[in-house]
Amino acid sequence: MSLGTIYPAQQLCLREVGLRDGLQLVKQFPTTVDKKAWIQQEHQAGVRYFEVGSFLPAHRFPQFADVRELIAFAKTLDHSVVSALVLNERGVVDALTTAVDEIMYVVSATEQHSLANSGKTRAQAIELLQRAVALRDAQAHPAIISTGISMAFGCSLAGRVNPDEVLDLIGQCFEAGADMVALADTVGYANPQQVRALMRAALNAFPNQAIGLHLHDTRGLALANATVALEEGVRILDGSLAGLGGCPFAPGATGNVVFEDLVYLCDSMELHTGIDLEGLLRTRHLVAASMPHEPLQGALAQAGLPRL
Amino acid sequence: MSLGTIYPAQQLCLREVGLRDGLQLVKQFPTTVDKKAWIQQEHQAGVRYFEVGSFLPAHRFPQFADVRELIAFAKTLDHSVVSALVLNERGVVDALTTAVDEIMYVVSATEQHSLANSGKTRAQAIELLQRAVALRDAQAHPAIISTGISMAFGCSLAGRVNPDEVLDLIGQCFEAGADMVALADTVGYANPQQVRALMRAALNAFPNQAIGLHLHDTRGLALANATVALEEGVRILDGSLAGLGGCPFAPGATGNVVFEDLVYLCDSMELHTGIDLEGLLRTRHLVAASMPHEPLQGALAQAGLPRL
Repeated sequence: MSLGTIYPAQQLCLREVGLRDGLQLVKQFPTTVDKKAWIQQEHQAGVRYFEVGSFLPAHRFPQFADVRELIAFAKTLDHSVVSALVLNERGVVDALTTAVDEIMYVVSATEQHSLANSGKTRAQAIELLQRAVALRDAQAHPAIISTGISMAFGCSLAGRVNPDEVLDLIGQCFEAGADMVALADTVGYANPQQVRALMRAALNAFPNQAIGLHLHDTRGLALANATVALEEGVRILDGSLAGLGGCPFAPGATGNVVFEDLVYLCDSMELHTGIDLEGLLRTRHLVAASMPHEPLQGALAQAGLPRL
Repeated sequence: MSLGTIYPAQQLCLREVGLRDGLQLVKQFPTTVDKKAWIQQEHQAGVRYFEVGSFLPAHRFPQFADVRELIAFAKTLDHSVVSALVLNERGVVDALTTAVDEIMYVVSATEQHSLANSGKTRAQAIELLQRAVALRDAQAHPAIISTGISMAFGCSLAGRVNPDEVLDLIGQCFEAGADMVALADTVGYANPQQVRALMRAALNAFPNQAIGLHLHDTRGLALANATVALEEGVRILDGSLAGLGGCPFAPGATGNVVFEDLVYLCDSMELHTGIDLEGLLRTRHLVAASMPHEPLQGALAQAGLPRL
């Protein structure tokens, strides 16, 4: 698929990353059969964007050992867009042996976090992005390569992040060949004022590019941040079913923005999601059954839809 | 105190309603000693607005039997603004025997809910507001009389609520002598688009009046709704410590917007709260100890403040 097919301009694209970011930290995880049922039920409810895992060493991250099988499965579903995360060149090479639609490559917003997390400077991380694009092109693989900028709104190591550095990094990603760039509030430091300002600046600086937002609800502001981002025109947003995915720096804290609550927010803003909320909420039962010790978040699941 | 002293124009006024709305539905509640410690600790942290209870029959609402004692206690604290709820004339008469600063009187946004909840039409409810103002004036009691319009963003009985009817009702409340009018999302139906539109219209229609907002987090949108309200210029907002106060129509659902998360949001928007968040968060221990079976909400308490 081409970029325009995957992320058509102005069209709302809600990416369910529960099987990737939602499982990043867990010790207990669903079987491959359960994961396929999860994808299938969400697809039936109208979800189209699935981040199904990471290309990481299976002995260290057994929760992602089935990423190839999940990509192959998700690709059988009509109009699905199947994404997987990579952190290094080995991951890129592996991903290119699959039919994945989108390779999500991660760079850090701060030098400190980049070095601590990947052992690479930001400049080296951008070089690797160029190399990933070259590898993809050499194979004529149809996947797009997207980039997530972690710690874009605040860093667990560096603290405050200069928005001008983030804007500069977005530009470097696009120059290096990224098809989409998503800003990630990895540790839940973002607030609405900051999100409005940075997303507005990013959309203004790169008006013809696909720019997304990956929010965590660590400090309760994820839906507030999503609201102002949607108002600013951001149309590519991540979420994870039941808010799976905690924060390594805040044990017990909530994780990714709750996907179904995000869908409800978009509906309320009269943005077309194409997603049946009742069907989506039913998929939570499957998560609860396959991860019984994992706390599930989500206000809508508790309260139900308004009776209007 | 005068209205201008209680709600100075443009100044952020965060009302902690945990001891009132937070205890509305509970079977287990803190002792009077615990409640006083709750108020005192919050006051030490900088909270100034306390809704400390309701004037309701003590045999049916034993959690509010100590409302007179709490008013007297809270009044001993410097610069405190002490509020209590009334639902009928008996409550107004009782409240006027105390040193309460603000009598909060409730009307319904919809005729259906007004009749079901109070046995009165909205017109009769407005007449009672006029009568409350007259009683206050006859005694030259210094209390202001504020009005909460319940179900202002959606009604558990009538469903959708016409915003024009709400605006009309706000006008009737001010004409009847209300000093402040707060719109309440009683059952958590509000969404940011709706909140922005209605609060903007209300502030435009009544530019010289005090207008507040009482949010519930039933469907996870309370902080998103607060964000857009703050952006529109709303400066009087309610919250309850640890989000106490559920929803009678959605068992297990979250209650009022979490006061400490609301303070965090206001801080992040560079609005002066005067509240020490660490001190406020410590008050939760007291709530947890005195209501051990009550689930406490709140993202900030889980995650801690960002390390910036």
